[in-house]
Amino acid sequence: MLIDGLQCGHFTRETFEELRRGGVTCVTITAGFWEGTMESLDALARWRELIRENQDLVVLATTAADIERAAASNRTALLIGYQNSNLFEGRIRFVELFAELGVRVVQLTYNNQNELAGSCYETEDSGLARFGREVIDEMNRTGMLVDLSHVGNRSTLEAVKHSKKPVAITHANADSLFAHKRNKTDDVLKALADNGGVIGCATYRNITGDYYCSTPKAWAEMVARTVEIAGIDHVAIGTDRSHNFAKPDYDWMRQGRWTRGIDYGAGSAARPGKVPPADWFKEVGNLNLIPGGLAEVGFSPEEVAKITAGNWLRVYREVFGG
Amino acid sequence: MLIDGLQCGHFTRETFEELRRGGVTCVTITAGFWEGTMESLDALARWRELIRENQDLVVLATTAADIERAAASNRTALLIGYQNSNLFEGRIRFVELFAELGVRVVQLTYNNQNELAGSCYETEDSGLARFGREVIDEMNRTGMLVDLSHVGNRSTLEAVKHSKKPVAITHANADSLFAHKRNKTDDVLKALADNGGVIGCATYRNITGDYYCSTPKAWAEMVARTVEIAGIDHVAIGTDRSHNFAKPDYDWMRQGRWTRGIDYGAGSAARPGKVPPADWFKEVGNLNLIPGGLAEVGFSPEEVAKITAGNWLRVYREVFGG
Repeated sequence: MLIDGLQCGHFTRETFEELRRGGVTCVTITAGFWEGTMESLDALARWRELIRENQDLVVLATTAADIERAAASNRTALLIGYQNSNLFEGRIRFVELFAELGVRVVQLTYNNQNELAGSCYETEDSGLARFGREVIDEMNRTGMLVDLSHVGNRSTLEAVKHSKKPVAITHANADSLFAHKRNKTDDVLKALADNGGVIGCATYRNITGDYYCSTPKAWAEMVARTVEIAGIDHVAIGTDRSHNFAKPDYDWMRQGRWTRGIDYGAGSAARPGKVPPADWFKEVGNLNLIPGGLAEVGFSPEEVAKITAGNWLRVYREVFGG
Repeated sequence: MLIDGLQCGHFTRETFEELRRGGVTCVTITAGFWEGTMESLDALARWRELIRENQDLVVLATTAADIERAAASNRTALLIGYQNSNLFEGRIRFVELFAELGVRVVQLTYNNQNELAGSCYETEDSGLARFGREVIDEMNRTGMLVDLSHVGNRSTLEAVKHSKKPVAITHANADSLFAHKRNKTDDVLKALADNGGVIGCATYRNITGDYYCSTPKAWAEMVARTVEIAGIDHVAIGTDRSHNFAKPDYDWMRQGRWTRGIDYGAGSAARPGKVPPADWFKEVGNLNLIPGGLAEVGFSPEEVAKITAGNWLRVYREVFGG
């Protein structure tokens, strides 16, 4: 089994076929970044339809058992995720409604501070705010996974401690291995492990660096060092791979409707646009090179199984319930 | 069993206790009149919460089996309905989402023409419009009951013929028995019967008249005459009873946001406000006087069972599915 904790972009039948060729068991997709309730419902309805239209290749998963059934029927399970909490538009009761509609992963905030928490790109992270605590409680109750990837380190730490269920950093790396605002400090990763949560190690070049992007073995070295920090039960895959993204998509991701200026997201003025994928990760099916890389750096078959699927499955089971 | 095809107003724990005292098995509640998607989701979320908070008395029903289980556990099953289609805000895909969230009854339009159909209060009824046909198809697919009570007679007839599943006139009477814009002509009632649908006979004084409101037997006479028109398998109860309604509620029902003037709804300048309930229907628990009234006018026990519950249950089973 091979589970990717986060991808984004425009998925098509061709994307699903690639995922099948790579033997990918499960992917959390991104159904929105800045969109409010109406736009998020639109996106959700279209995702449900896209999945139904391609049900020979993919299946909408809402439980760990769904993922196991997808694997058994040679299909890729898709978990519906949002990289921001704007879908709730400040309404605590909408958490339950979106959960019932199949949403399973929501990031507290994306690149900007909001009413829930501080973001990794803000100068000052105020910590977890009042509505953020309410939403985490409600996500715990309704079986949604709290994603803290773009959340600031202080807010992340407070969210990890507040949540009664395991949480996730679906797509980021260890800041001590590659220094970047998007990456997580060792104290955060240790707290995540105490909480029973999981970090999905990214392959996105801007937050991974050229060395770890060079070969499956080099990327696996990064994973091995992350395991040294967080433990073998708390490290998994979260590539942050995007599909069919063009400039308007990057503009939307980064600038949304919040600025008339330019924002580089995880990039910089020197590296403004789309960056090349990891050298070994030319197409999404190359995910199947990961188990070999992990073996090369010394992980046992049992450890490889945890990193590639078992750790995500355990968290999904605990968080999503039956 | 005693099923009421439509009530409205603000339900409280006291309302639920009254329903229990009356032995009422199932009620379709009104979660909205003019509200758009956001407000309708708010209302839906609050209804779900209200039902959960009173789960010793009531249960959210989405199938006929749920209603039978509620009866077995001495609770009242509640079906969530809207008296207008504004909850969809013109988005065909939202039908599926609201169905999944538990909505089971939607009226195509309330007192005004909209993008689906003409209303009983419009001078000219254009008939079922393009979006109306789309919504009926989608409601058929997703297991929602099409309600045509306030819809104009021409649009009602076209909707009855268009629908592949039985439809409902949840709360109206026969126009030939009491002439009123809100009531339905005999040709509509005969077409409804051909479609397998059901009309819920109302007790609302403005559309029932003082005579049929005088005693349970008088009201049962109206039901008996309706059965002569539509047949014993197509007539049921739909009181249109409202709970805890005050002037602001009537203003909202009638004027919504569509006029700065005054609209009397089913009333008139001579009878502008709240009208008294039927003389025999002082509290909602008096619904249990209906079986006796029906027996008095000569219905057999089997016929009484069809009118008070069996006909609704059959339609719910056919429309909602498993």
